[in-house]
Amino acid sequence: MSLLVVGSVAFDNLTTPFGARKEILGGSATYFSFAARFFSPVRLVAVVGDDFPEKYIKLFEDKGIDIEGLEIARGKTFRWEGEYDWDFNAKTISTSLNVFADFNPKIPKAYKNSEFVFLANIDPDLQAKVLSQVKNPELVACDTMNHWIASKQNNLIKFLKKVDIFFLNDAEARQLSGEKNLLKAAKQIMKFGPKRIIIKKGEHGSLLFAKNSVFSVPAFILEEVYDPTGAGDTFAGAVMGYLAKCGKVNEKNLRNAIIYGNIMATFTVEEFGPWRLARVTRSQVEKRVREFEKLTCF
Amino acid sequence: MSLLVVGSVAFDNLTTPFGARKEILGGSATYFSFAARFFSPVRLVAVVGDDFPEKYIKLFEDKGIDIEGLEIARGKTFRWEGEYDWDFNAKTISTSLNVFADFNPKIPKAYKNSEFVFLANIDPDLQAKVLSQVKNPELVACDTMNHWIASKQNNLIKFLKKVDIFFLNDAEARQLSGEKNLLKAAKQIMKFGPKRIIIKKGEHGSLLFAKNSVFSVPAFILEEVYDPTGAGDTFAGAVMGYLAKCGKVNEKNLRNAIIYGNIMATFTVEEFGPWRLARVTRSQVEKRVREFEKLTCF
Repeated sequence: MSLLVVGSVAFDNLTTPFGARKEILGGSATYFSFAARFFSPVRLVAVVGDDFPEKYIKLFEDKGIDIEGLEIARGKTFRWEGEYDWDFNAKTISTSLNVFADFNPKIPKAYKNSEFVFLANIDPDLQAKVLSQVKNPELVACDTMNHWIASKQNNLIKFLKKVDIFFLNDAEARQLSGEKNLLKAAKQIMKFGPKRIIIKKGEHGSLLFAKNSVFSVPAFILEEVYDPTGAGDTFAGAVMGYLAKCGKVNEKNLRNAIIYGNIMATFTVEEFGPWRLARVTRSQVEKRVREFEKLTCF
Repeated sequence: MSLLVVGSVAFDNLTTPFGARKEILGGSATYFSFAARFFSPVRLVAVVGDDFPEKYIKLFEDKGIDIEGLEIARGKTFRWEGEYDWDFNAKTISTSLNVFADFNPKIPKAYKNSEFVFLANIDPDLQAKVLSQVKNPELVACDTMNHWIASKQNNLIKFLKKVDIFFLNDAEARQLSGEKNLLKAAKQIMKFGPKRIIIKKGEHGSLLFAKNSVFSVPAFILEEVYDPTGAGDTFAGAVMGYLAKCGKVNEKNLRNAIIYGNIMATFTVEEFGPWRLARVTRSQVEKRVREFEKLTCF
Protein backbone atom coordinates (compact mmCIF):
# COMPACT_ATOMS: atom_id res chain seq x y z
CA MET A 1 0.00 0.00 0.00
CA SER A 2 1.21 3.54 -0.66
CA LEU A 3 2.15 5.42 2.51
CA LEU A 4 2.11 9.20 2.90
CA VAL A 5 3.57 11.12 5.83
CA VAL A 6 3.06 14.81 6.56
CA GLY A 7 5.19 16.33 9.30
CA SER A 8 8.31 18.31 10.05
CA VAL A 9 11.86 18.19 8.79
CA ALA A 10 14.00 20.20 11.16
CA PHE A 11 17.29 20.87 12.85
CA ASP A 12 17.61 20.01 16.52
CA ASN A 13 19.92 21.30 19.22
CA LEU A 14 19.97 18.53 21.79
CA THR A 15 21.31 18.12 25.29
CA THR A 16 21.09 14.79 27.06
CA PRO A 17 22.98 13.43 30.09
CA PHE A 18 25.48 12.07 27.54
CA GLY A 19 26.38 15.28 25.81
CA ALA A 20 25.12 18.00 23.50
CA ARG A 21 24.81 18.23 19.74
CA LYS A 22 23.91 21.17 17.51
CA GLU A 23 22.13 21.38 14.15
CA ILE A 24 21.26 17.69 14.07
CA LEU A 25 18.90 16.60 11.30
CA GLY A 26 15.53 15.94 12.93
CA GLY A 27 11.78 16.40 12.65
CA SER A 28 8.88 13.96 12.86
CA ALA A 29 8.73 13.27 9.12
CA THR A 30 12.47 12.55 9.04
CA TYR A 31 12.40 9.87 11.73
CA PHE A 32 9.07 8.52 10.47
CA SER A 33 10.22 8.10 6.89
CA PHE A 34 13.67 6.73 7.82
CA ALA A 35 11.89 3.95 9.74
CA ALA A 36 8.92 3.38 7.38
CA ARG A 37 11.05 3.06 4.22
CA PHE A 38 12.52 -0.05 5.76
CA PHE A 39 9.22 -1.81 5.17
CA SER A 40 7.41 0.10 2.45
CA PRO A 41 7.89 2.98 -0.01
CA VAL A 42 7.05 6.28 1.64
CA ARG A 43 5.95 9.68 0.31
CA LEU A 44 6.94 12.71 2.33
CA VAL A 45 5.27 16.12 2.64
CA ALA A 46 7.14 18.74 4.65
CA VAL A 47 8.78 22.13 4.31
CA VAL A 48 12.40 23.16 4.77
CA GLY A 49 14.16 26.49 4.31
CA ASP A 50 16.69 27.39 1.64
CA ASP A 51 19.40 26.72 4.23
CA PHE A 52 18.62 23.00 4.07
CA PRO A 53 21.77 21.29 2.76
CA GLU A 54 21.73 19.50 -0.56
CA LYS A 55 23.46 16.53 1.08
CA TYR A 56 20.39 15.89 3.23
CA ILE A 57 18.06 16.14 0.22
CA LYS A 58 20.26 13.50 -1.34
CA LEU A 59 20.15 11.40 1.84
CA PHE A 60 16.35 11.21 1.66
CA GLU A 61 16.59 10.24 -1.99
CA ASP A 62 19.27 7.63 -1.30
CA LYS A 63 16.98 6.09 1.31
CA GLY A 64 14.35 5.70 -1.41
CA ILE A 65 12.01 8.23 0.19
CA ASP A 66 9.78 10.04 -2.30
CA ILE A 67 10.38 13.74 -1.63
CA GLU A 68 8.30 15.27 -4.38
CA GLY A 69 6.28 16.75 -1.51
CA LEU A 70 9.27 18.33 0.25
CA GLU A 71 8.79 22.06 -0.28
CA ILE A 72 11.83 24.30 -0.16
CA ALA A 73 10.68 27.72 1.00
CA ARG A 74 12.52 30.97 1.29
CA GLY A 75 13.87 31.36 4.83
CA LYS A 76 15.26 29.16 7.53
CA THR A 77 14.41 25.57 8.37
CA PHE A 78 12.43 24.82 11.53
CA ARG A 79 14.68 24.57 14.61
CA TRP A 80 13.97 22.88 17.93
CA GLU A 81 16.14 23.02 21.01
CA GLY A 82 15.49 20.41 23.66
CA GLU A 83 16.99 19.02 26.80
CA TYR A 84 16.58 15.67 28.52
CA ASP A 85 17.26 14.74 32.09
CA TRP A 86 17.85 11.15 33.26
CA ASP A 87 14.15 10.40 33.00
CA PHE A 88 14.40 11.13 29.25
CA ASN A 89 11.35 13.36 29.18
CA ALA A 90 11.90 16.15 26.68
CA LYS A 91 11.99 19.74 27.88
CA THR A 92 11.66 22.30 25.10
CA ILE A 93 14.21 25.09 25.46
CA SER A 94 13.23 26.96 22.31
CA THR A 95 11.24 26.54 19.13
CA SER A 96 11.94 28.58 15.99
CA LEU A 97 9.23 27.68 13.52
CA ASN A 98 10.81 29.70 10.69
CA VAL A 99 9.40 28.44 7.34
CA PHE A 100 7.18 26.04 9.27
CA ALA A 101 5.14 29.00 10.57
CA ASP A 102 3.55 29.47 7.14
CA PHE A 103 3.47 25.80 6.20
CA ASN A 104 0.41 25.18 4.06
CA PRO A 105 0.96 21.64 2.89
CA LYS A 106 0.04 20.94 -0.69
CA ILE A 107 -0.21 17.29 -1.59
CA PRO A 108 1.41 16.59 -4.97
CA LYS A 109 -0.99 15.13 -7.52
CA ALA A 110 0.91 11.84 -7.49
CA TYR A 111 0.29 11.52 -3.74
CA LYS A 112 -3.47 12.08 -3.81
CA ASN A 113 -4.20 8.38 -4.21
CA SER A 114 -2.19 7.45 -1.09
CA GLU A 115 -3.84 4.54 0.68
CA PHE A 116 -2.22 4.87 4.11
CA VAL A 117 -1.78 8.36 5.55
CA PHE A 118 0.12 9.42 8.65
CA LEU A 119 -0.34 12.95 9.93
CA ALA A 120 2.53 13.58 12.31
CA ASN A 121 2.36 16.00 15.18
CA ILE A 122 1.24 19.30 13.59
CA ASP A 123 -1.68 21.68 14.14
CA PRO A 124 -4.91 19.60 13.94
CA ASP A 125 -6.32 22.14 11.48
CA LEU A 126 -3.38 21.45 9.17
CA GLN A 127 -3.87 17.73 9.68
CA ALA A 128 -7.48 18.11 8.53
CA LYS A 129 -6.47 20.29 5.61
CA VAL A 130 -3.93 17.76 4.40
CA LEU A 131 -6.33 14.88 4.78
CA SER A 132 -8.99 16.64 2.70
CA GLN A 133 -6.57 16.56 -0.25
CA VAL A 134 -6.23 12.76 -0.21
CA LYS A 135 -8.84 10.72 -2.09
CA ASN A 136 -10.48 8.06 0.08
CA PRO A 137 -7.49 6.81 2.03
CA GLU A 138 -7.89 3.32 3.43
CA LEU A 139 -6.16 4.05 6.71
CA VAL A 140 -5.65 7.37 8.46
CA ALA A 141 -3.33 7.61 11.45
CA CYS A 142 -2.05 10.58 13.37
CA ASP A 143 0.02 11.75 16.30
CA THR A 144 -0.37 14.89 18.42
CA MET A 145 1.25 16.62 21.39
CA ASN A 146 0.35 18.34 24.66
CA HIS A 147 0.50 21.77 22.98
CA TRP A 148 -2.38 20.99 20.60
CA ILE A 149 -4.41 19.23 23.30
CA ALA A 150 -4.13 22.39 25.42
CA SER A 151 -4.64 24.97 22.68
CA LYS A 152 -6.87 23.28 20.09
CA GLN A 153 -8.64 20.50 21.94
CA ASN A 154 -12.00 20.91 20.18
CA ASN A 155 -10.44 21.01 16.71
CA LEU A 156 -8.35 17.98 17.55
CA ILE A 157 -11.36 16.03 18.81
CA LYS A 158 -13.30 17.00 15.69
CA PHE A 159 -10.43 15.83 13.49
CA LEU A 160 -10.19 12.51 15.36
CA LYS A 161 -13.53 11.48 13.82
CA LYS A 162 -11.58 10.85 10.62
CA VAL A 163 -8.76 8.93 12.26
CA ASP A 164 -8.44 5.14 12.37
CA ILE A 165 -5.28 4.82 14.50
CA PHE A 166 -4.28 7.48 16.98
CA PHE A 167 -0.72 7.48 18.36
CA LEU A 168 -0.07 9.44 21.54
CA ASN A 169 1.95 9.10 24.73
CA ASP A 170 0.64 8.27 28.18
CA ALA A 171 0.70 11.85 29.48
CA GLU A 172 -1.16 13.08 26.37
CA ALA A 173 -3.76 10.32 26.70
CA ARG A 174 -4.42 11.37 30.29
CA GLN A 175 -4.53 15.06 29.31
CA LEU A 176 -6.94 14.55 26.41
CA SER A 177 -9.30 12.18 28.21
CA GLY A 178 -9.19 13.61 31.71
CA GLU A 179 -8.76 10.02 32.95
CA LYS A 180 -5.73 8.93 35.03
CA ASN A 181 -6.21 5.23 34.25
CA LEU A 182 -4.91 4.44 30.75
CA LEU A 183 -7.58 1.84 29.99
CA LYS A 184 -10.30 4.36 30.83
CA ALA A 185 -8.39 7.06 28.92
CA ALA A 186 -8.20 4.89 25.79
CA LYS A 187 -11.91 4.01 25.99
CA GLN A 188 -12.77 7.70 26.27
CA ILE A 189 -10.55 8.66 23.33
CA MET A 190 -11.99 5.88 21.17
CA LYS A 191 -15.37 7.59 21.62
CA PHE A 192 -13.92 10.55 19.69
CA GLY A 193 -13.55 8.34 16.63
CA PRO A 194 -10.33 6.32 16.39
CA LYS A 195 -10.90 2.57 16.24
CA ARG A 196 -7.48 1.96 17.68
CA ILE A 197 -5.32 3.87 20.14
CA ILE A 198 -1.60 3.27 20.49
CA ILE A 199 -0.18 4.68 23.71
CA LYS A 200 3.58 5.11 23.76
CA LYS A 201 5.17 4.82 27.21
CA GLY A 202 8.85 5.35 26.32
CA GLU A 203 11.09 3.05 28.36
CA HIS A 204 7.96 1.27 29.64
CA GLY A 205 6.82 0.03 26.23
CA SER A 206 3.50 0.57 24.52
CA LEU A 207 -0.17 -0.31 24.58
CA LEU A 208 -2.60 -0.99 21.73
CA PHE A 209 -6.27 -0.53 22.50
CA ALA A 210 -9.13 -1.68 20.27
CA LYS A 211 -12.83 -2.09 20.99
CA ASN A 212 -12.52 -5.56 22.49
CA SER A 213 -8.82 -6.09 23.07
CA VAL A 214 -5.69 -4.68 24.61
CA PHE A 215 -2.09 -5.50 23.70
CA SER A 216 0.70 -4.58 26.08
CA VAL A 217 4.35 -4.85 25.24
CA PRO A 218 7.40 -3.85 27.26
CA ALA A 219 10.29 -1.90 25.77
CA PHE A 220 13.49 -3.57 24.68
CA ILE A 221 16.10 -3.37 27.46
CA LEU A 222 19.00 -1.19 26.38
CA GLU A 223 22.18 -0.53 28.29
CA GLU A 224 22.90 2.74 26.52
CA VAL A 225 20.31 5.36 25.60
CA TYR A 226 22.01 8.48 24.30
CA ASP A 227 19.20 10.53 22.83
CA PRO A 228 15.48 9.72 22.81
CA THR A 229 14.68 12.36 20.16
CA GLY A 230 12.62 10.85 17.37
CA ALA A 231 11.91 7.55 19.16
CA GLY A 232 8.14 8.07 18.97
CA ASP A 233 8.24 9.06 15.29
CA THR A 234 10.50 6.12 14.50
CA PHE A 235 8.04 3.85 16.29
CA ALA A 236 5.10 5.25 14.29
CA GLY A 237 7.07 5.04 11.04
CA ALA A 238 7.89 1.39 11.56
CA VAL A 239 4.31 0.57 12.62
CA MET A 240 2.82 2.30 9.57
CA GLY A 241 5.48 0.99 7.19
CA TYR A 242 4.93 -2.55 8.40
CA LEU A 243 1.14 -2.20 8.06
CA ALA A 244 1.51 -0.74 4.55
CA LYS A 245 3.65 -3.73 3.62
CA CYS A 246 1.05 -6.16 5.02
CA GLY A 247 -1.73 -4.26 3.24
CA LYS A 248 -4.27 -5.47 5.77
CA VAL A 249 -4.84 -3.95 9.18
CA ASN A 250 -5.87 -6.61 11.66
CA GLU A 251 -4.95 -7.38 15.25
CA LYS A 252 -2.18 -9.83 14.32
CA ASN A 253 -0.50 -7.46 11.86
CA LEU A 254 -0.84 -4.57 14.29
CA ARG A 255 0.81 -6.50 17.12
CA ASN A 256 3.71 -7.46 14.88
CA ALA A 257 3.90 -3.87 13.61
CA ILE A 258 4.23 -2.64 17.18
CA ILE A 259 7.08 -5.09 17.85
CA TYR A 260 8.90 -3.68 14.82
CA GLY A 261 8.10 -0.15 15.99
CA ASN A 262 9.58 -0.96 19.37
CA ILE A 263 12.73 -2.45 17.85
CA MET A 264 13.34 0.27 15.25
CA ALA A 265 13.09 2.91 17.99
CA THR A 266 15.87 1.18 19.95
CA PHE A 267 18.30 1.97 17.15
CA THR A 268 17.24 5.62 17.05
CA VAL A 269 18.01 6.21 20.72
CA GLU A 270 21.46 4.62 20.57
CA GLU A 271 22.98 7.69 18.93
CA PHE A 272 22.28 11.40 18.68
CA GLY A 273 20.09 12.17 15.64
CA PRO A 274 18.76 9.73 13.03
CA TRP A 275 22.16 8.30 12.09
CA ARG A 276 22.01 4.90 13.75
CA LEU A 277 18.51 4.47 12.29
CA ALA A 278 19.79 5.53 8.88
CA ARG A 279 22.49 2.85 8.96
CA VAL A 280 20.55 -0.06 10.41
CA THR A 281 20.41 -3.22 8.29
CA ARG A 282 17.64 -5.78 7.91
CA SER A 283 19.68 -8.47 9.63
CA GLN A 284 20.37 -6.19 12.62
CA VAL A 285 16.65 -5.50 12.93
CA GLU A 286 15.72 -9.18 12.66
CA LYS A 287 18.39 -10.16 15.20
CA ARG A 288 17.01 -7.67 17.69
CA VAL A 289 13.44 -8.88 17.06
CA ARG A 290 14.60 -12.41 17.96
CA GLU A 291 16.30 -11.06 21.09
CA PHE A 292 13.06 -9.32 21.96
CA GLU A 293 11.16 -12.59 21.62
CA LYS A 294 13.60 -14.18 24.08
CA LEU A 295 13.25 -11.20 26.39
CA THR A 296 9.47 -11.50 26.59
CA CYS A 297 8.49 -15.17 26.10
CA PHE A 298 7.05 -17.21 28.92
CA MET B 1 9.56 -27.52 48.98
CA SER B 2 8.94 -25.96 52.37
CA LEU B 3 8.68 -22.15 52.26
CA LEU B 4 9.43 -19.83 55.15
CA VAL B 5 8.64 -16.11 55.27
CA VAL B 6 9.86 -13.64 57.86
CA GLY B 7 8.32 -10.18 57.79
CA SER B 8 5.69 -7.96 59.33
CA VAL B 9 2.07 -8.42 60.28
CA ALA B 10 0.59 -5.00 60.83
CA PHE B 11 -2.36 -2.65 60.76
CA ASP B 12 -2.47 -0.02 58.06
CA ASN B 13 -4.24 3.32 57.84
CA LEU B 14 -4.51 3.99 54.14
CA THR B 15 -5.55 6.91 51.98
CA THR B 16 -5.75 6.55 48.20
CA PRO B 17 -7.55 8.68 45.60
CA PHE B 18 -10.47 6.29 46.11
CA GLY B 19 -10.94 6.75 49.83
CA ALA B 20 -9.46 6.06 53.23
CA ARG B 21 -9.51 3.00 55.49
CA LYS B 22 -8.33 2.57 59.06
CA GLU B 23 -6.86 -0.43 60.93
CA ILE B 24 -6.69 -2.63 57.85
CA LEU B 25 -4.85 -5.93 58.26
CA GLY B 26 -1.51 -5.54 56.48
CA GLY B 27 2.21 -6.21 56.63
CA SER B 28 4.65 -7.83 54.23
CA ALA B 29 4.32 -11.33 55.71
CA THR B 30 0.52 -11.12 55.53
CA TYR B 31 0.36 -10.32 51.81
CA PHE B 32 3.24 -12.68 51.07
CA SER B 33 1.69 -15.66 52.81
CA PHE B 34 -1.83 -14.98 51.51
CA ALA B 35 -0.40 -15.22 47.97
CA ALA B 36 2.16 -18.00 48.51
CA ARG B 37 -0.28 -20.40 50.22
CA PHE B 38 -2.15 -20.52 46.94
CA PHE B 39 0.72 -22.55 45.49
CA SER B 40 2.56 -24.10 48.41
CA PRO B 41 2.37 -24.50 52.21
CA VAL B 42 3.94 -21.52 53.94
CA ARG B 43 5.49 -21.02 57.37
CA LEU B 44 5.28 -17.56 58.87
CA VAL B 45 7.57 -15.80 61.33
CA ALA B 46 6.40 -12.39 62.57
CA VAL B 47 5.35 -10.58 65.71
CA VAL B 48 2.03 -8.99 66.68
CA GLY B 49 0.86 -7.29 69.85
CA ASP B 50 -1.72 -8.55 72.31
CA ASP B 51 -4.24 -6.27 70.57
CA PHE B 52 -4.15 -8.52 67.51
CA PRO B 53 -7.67 -9.95 67.13
CA GLU B 54 -8.28 -13.65 67.49
CA LYS B 55 -10.34 -13.55 64.26
CA TYR B 56 -7.22 -12.68 62.26
CA ILE B 57 -5.21 -15.47 63.93
CA LYS B 58 -8.00 -17.76 62.82
CA LEU B 59 -7.95 -16.28 59.33
CA PHE B 60 -4.27 -17.22 58.86
CA GLU B 61 -5.06 -20.71 60.14
CA ASP B 62 -8.06 -21.03 57.84
CA LYS B 63 -5.83 -20.13 54.90
CA GLY B 64 -3.60 -23.04 55.82
CA ILE B 65 -0.69 -20.80 56.81
CA ASP B 66 1.55 -22.30 59.49
CA ILE B 67 1.70 -19.65 62.24
CA GLU B 68 3.75 -21.49 64.83
CA GLY B 69 6.28 -18.70 64.25
CA LEU B 70 3.81 -15.87 64.89
CA GLU B 71 4.88 -14.42 68.23
CA ILE B 72 2.30 -12.57 70.30
CA ALA B 73 4.16 -9.98 72.35
CA ARG B 74 2.97 -7.68 75.08
CA GLY B 75 2.07 -4.30 73.57
CA LYS B 76 0.57 -3.01 70.38
CA THR B 77 0.86 -4.39 66.85
CA PHE B 78 2.98 -2.50 64.31
CA ARG B 79 1.02 0.32 62.60
CA TRP B 80 1.76 2.03 59.29
CA GLU B 81 -0.05 5.04 57.91
CA GLY B 82 0.39 5.73 54.23
CA GLU B 83 -1.03 7.87 51.47
CA TYR B 84 -1.04 7.42 47.72
CA ASP B 85 -1.51 10.01 45.02
CA TRP B 86 -2.60 9.16 41.47
CA ASP B 87 0.85 7.85 40.64
CA PHE B 88 0.34 5.21 43.35
CA ASN B 89 3.73 5.80 44.95
CA ALA B 90 3.43 5.32 48.69
CA LYS B 91 4.11 8.23 51.01
CA THR B 92 4.60 7.24 54.63
CA ILE B 93 2.63 9.48 56.99
CA SER B 94 3.62 7.69 60.17
CA THR B 95 5.18 4.47 61.40
CA SER B 96 4.57 3.09 64.89
CA LEU B 97 6.82 0.08 65.26
CA ASN B 98 5.33 -0.89 68.64
CA VAL B 99 6.17 -4.58 69.33
CA PHE B 100 8.12 -4.68 66.07
CA ALA B 101 10.77 -2.39 67.60
CA ASP B 102 12.07 -5.27 69.73
CA PHE B 103 11.42 -8.02 67.20
CA ASN B 104 14.08 -10.66 67.57
CA PRO B 105 12.78 -13.42 65.34
CA LYS B 106 13.21 -16.93 66.66
CA ILE B 107 12.72 -19.66 64.12
CA PRO B 108 10.68 -22.53 65.57
CA LYS B 109 12.50 -25.87 65.54
CA ALA B 110 10.07 -27.24 63.00
CA TYR B 111 10.98 -24.42 60.59
CA LYS B 112 14.75 -24.86 60.72
CA ASN B 113 14.76 -27.29 57.82
CA SER B 114 12.93 -24.83 55.51
CA GLU B 115 14.23 -25.22 51.97
CA PHE B 116 13.03 -21.91 50.51
CA VAL B 117 13.36 -18.79 52.64
CA PHE B 118 11.99 -15.31 51.98
CA LEU B 119 13.21 -12.46 54.13
CA ALA B 120 10.75 -9.64 53.62
CA ASN B 121 11.63 -6.00 54.00
CA ILE B 122 13.16 -5.78 57.50
CA ASP B 123 16.52 -4.57 58.88
CA PRO B 124 19.27 -6.43 56.95
CA ASP B 125 20.86 -7.37 60.31
CA LEU B 126 17.63 -9.10 61.29
CA GLN B 127 17.48 -10.76 57.86
CA ALA B 128 20.97 -12.17 58.47
CA LYS B 129 20.10 -13.25 62.01
CA VAL B 130 17.05 -15.13 60.82
CA LEU B 131 18.91 -16.79 58.00
CA SER B 132 21.62 -18.05 60.34
CA GLN B 133 18.93 -20.07 62.14
CA VAL B 134 17.94 -22.01 59.02
CA LYS B 135 19.95 -25.13 58.12
CA ASN B 136 21.29 -25.06 54.57
CA PRO B 137 18.33 -23.56 52.75
CA GLU B 138 18.21 -24.34 49.03
CA LEU B 139 16.98 -20.93 48.00
CA VAL B 140 17.25 -17.61 49.81
CA ALA B 141 15.32 -14.60 48.58
CA CYS B 142 14.79 -11.20 50.10
CA ASP B 143 13.27 -7.77 49.64
CA THR B 144 14.43 -4.42 51.02
CA MET B 145 13.44 -0.75 50.97
CA ASN B 146 14.95 2.73 50.48
CA HIS B 147 15.24 3.19 54.26
CA TRP B 148 17.72 0.28 54.66
CA ILE B 149 19.65 1.22 51.53
CA ALA B 150 20.14 4.70 52.98
CA SER B 151 20.83 3.72 56.58
CA LYS B 152 22.46 0.27 56.41
CA GLN B 153 23.88 0.00 52.90
CA ASN B 154 27.08 -1.87 53.92
CA ASN B 155 25.22 -4.39 56.07
CA LEU B 156 22.70 -4.93 53.29
CA ILE B 157 25.43 -5.47 50.69
CA LYS B 158 27.19 -7.91 53.04
CA PHE B 159 23.95 -9.81 53.56
CA LEU B 160 23.31 -10.00 49.80
CA LYS B 161 26.24 -12.43 49.48
CA LYS B 162 23.92 -15.09 50.93
CA VAL B 163 20.95 -14.21 48.70
CA ASP B 164 19.97 -16.08 45.53
CA ILE B 165 17.03 -13.92 44.40
CA PHE B 166 16.77 -10.27 45.32
CA PHE B 167 13.44 -8.48 44.90
CA LEU B 168 13.45 -4.68 44.80
CA ASN B 169 11.75 -1.87 42.96
CA ASP B 170 13.22 0.31 40.22
CA ALA B 171 13.93 3.30 42.47
CA GLU B 172 15.65 1.07 45.04
CA ALA B 173 17.76 -0.61 42.33
CA ARG B 174 18.94 2.81 41.14
CA GLN B 175 19.60 3.94 44.72
CA LEU B 176 21.58 0.82 45.68
CA SER B 177 23.66 0.64 42.49
CA GLY B 178 24.14 4.32 41.74
CA GLU B 179 23.19 3.49 38.13
CA LYS B 180 20.25 5.16 36.34
CA ASN B 181 19.96 2.47 33.69
CA LEU B 182 18.20 -0.61 35.09
CA LEU B 183 20.29 -3.11 33.12
CA LYS B 184 23.48 -1.56 34.48
CA ALA B 185 21.91 -1.36 37.94
CA ALA B 186 21.03 -5.06 37.90
CA LYS B 187 24.51 -6.04 36.71
CA GLN B 188 26.04 -4.00 39.51
CA ILE B 189 23.76 -5.52 42.16
CA MET B 190 24.46 -9.07 40.92
CA LYS B 191 28.11 -8.38 41.75
CA PHE B 192 27.05 -8.13 45.42
CA GLY B 193 25.99 -11.78 45.31
CA PRO B 194 22.44 -12.47 44.10
CA LYS B 195 22.31 -14.70 41.02
CA ARG B 196 18.98 -13.22 40.06
CA ILE B 197 17.47 -9.77 40.48
CA ILE B 198 13.75 -9.13 40.15
CA ILE B 199 12.93 -5.46 39.67
CA LYS B 200 9.32 -4.50 40.35
CA LYS B 201 8.06 -1.53 38.35
CA GLY B 202 4.47 -1.30 39.65
CA GLU B 203 2.07 -0.44 36.83
CA HIS B 204 4.93 -0.91 34.36
CA GLY B 205 5.48 -4.59 35.11
CA SER B 206 8.66 -6.31 36.18
CA LEU B 207 12.11 -7.41 35.05
CA LEU B 208 14.08 -10.55 35.85
CA PHE B 209 17.84 -10.34 35.43
CA ALA B 210 20.21 -13.31 35.47
CA LYS B 211 23.81 -13.62 34.35
CA ASN B 212 23.04 -14.16 30.69
CA SER B 213 19.38 -13.30 30.28
CA VAL B 214 16.72 -10.71 30.90
CA PHE B 215 12.97 -11.23 31.07
CA SER B 216 10.63 -8.27 30.78
CA VAL B 217 6.93 -8.45 31.37
CA PRO B 218 4.33 -5.69 31.37
CA ALA B 219 1.71 -5.38 34.09
CA PHE B 220 -1.83 -6.59 33.62
CA ILE B 221 -4.08 -3.72 32.51
CA LEU B 222 -6.65 -2.93 35.18
CA GLU B 223 -9.46 -0.44 34.97
CA GLU B 224 -9.74 -0.02 38.73
CA VAL B 225 -6.84 0.17 41.15
CA TYR B 226 -8.07 1.04 44.62
CA ASP B 227 -5.08 0.43 46.86
CA PRO B 228 -1.58 -0.69 45.84
CA THR B 229 -0.60 -1.61 49.42
CA GLY B 230 0.87 -5.10 49.51
CA ALA B 231 1.15 -5.51 45.73
CA GLY B 232 4.93 -6.08 45.90
CA ASP B 233 4.65 -8.55 48.77
CA THR B 234 1.82 -10.38 47.00
CA PHE B 235 4.00 -10.55 43.88
CA ALA B 236 6.94 -11.98 45.85
CA GLY B 237 4.65 -14.42 47.68
CA ALA B 238 3.24 -15.80 44.46
CA VAL B 239 6.69 -16.01 42.85
CA MET B 240 8.18 -17.87 45.81
CA GLY B 241 5.09 -20.05 46.33
CA TYR B 242 5.11 -21.03 42.67
CA LEU B 243 8.85 -21.84 42.78
CA ALA B 244 8.41 -23.87 45.97
CA LYS B 245 5.66 -25.85 44.23
CA CYS B 246 7.92 -26.47 41.21
CA GLY B 247 10.80 -27.41 43.49
CA LYS B 248 13.32 -26.44 40.85
CA VAL B 249 14.49 -22.91 40.14
CA ASN B 250 15.27 -22.47 36.47
CA GLU B 251 14.58 -19.75 33.93
CA LYS B 252 11.33 -21.32 32.70
CA ASN B 253 9.88 -21.78 36.19
CA LEU B 254 10.98 -18.29 37.18
CA ARG B 255 9.29 -16.68 34.18
CA ASN B 256 6.07 -18.52 34.92
CA ALA B 257 6.41 -17.63 38.59
CA ILE B 258 6.66 -13.95 37.66
CA ILE B 259 3.50 -14.19 35.56
CA TYR B 260 1.67 -15.61 38.57
CA GLY B 261 3.19 -12.92 40.76
CA ASN B 262 1.94 -10.29 38.35
CA ILE B 263 -1.55 -11.77 38.27
CA MET B 264 -1.93 -12.35 42.02
CA ALA B 265 -0.95 -8.72 42.65
CA THR B 266 -3.79 -7.53 40.40
CA PHE B 267 -6.30 -9.00 42.85
CA THR B 268 -4.63 -7.32 45.82
CA VAL B 269 -4.91 -3.83 44.34
CA GLU B 270 -8.58 -4.18 43.44
CA GLU B 271 -9.68 -3.61 47.04
CA PHE B 272 -8.34 -1.97 50.19
CA GLY B 273 -6.38 -4.47 52.27
CA PRO B 274 -5.76 -8.16 51.58
CA TRP B 275 -9.44 -9.09 51.25
CA ARG B 276 -9.72 -9.57 47.52
CA LEU B 277 -6.53 -11.63 47.63
CA ALA B 278 -7.93 -13.66 50.51
CA ARG B 279 -11.07 -14.50 48.51
CA VAL B 280 -9.57 -15.23 45.12
CA THR B 281 -10.20 -18.69 43.67
CA ARG B 282 -7.97 -20.88 41.53
CA SER B 283 -10.27 -20.52 38.53
CA GLN B 284 -10.25 -16.71 38.83
CA VAL B 285 -6.46 -16.76 38.86
CA GLU B 286 -6.21 -19.11 35.88
CA LYS B 287 -8.76 -17.06 33.95
CA ARG B 288 -6.70 -13.93 34.47
CA VAL B 289 -3.49 -15.73 33.46
CA ARG B 290 -5.18 -16.66 30.17
CA GLU B 291 -6.30 -13.05 29.71
CA PHE B 292 -2.72 -11.98 30.34
CA GLU B 293 -1.49 -14.36 27.66
CA LYS B 294 -3.94 -12.73 25.21
CA LEU B 295 -2.81 -9.28 26.35
CA THR B 296 0.84 -9.97 25.61
CA CYS B 297 1.08 -12.51 22.78
CA PHE B 298 2.42 -11.56 19.38
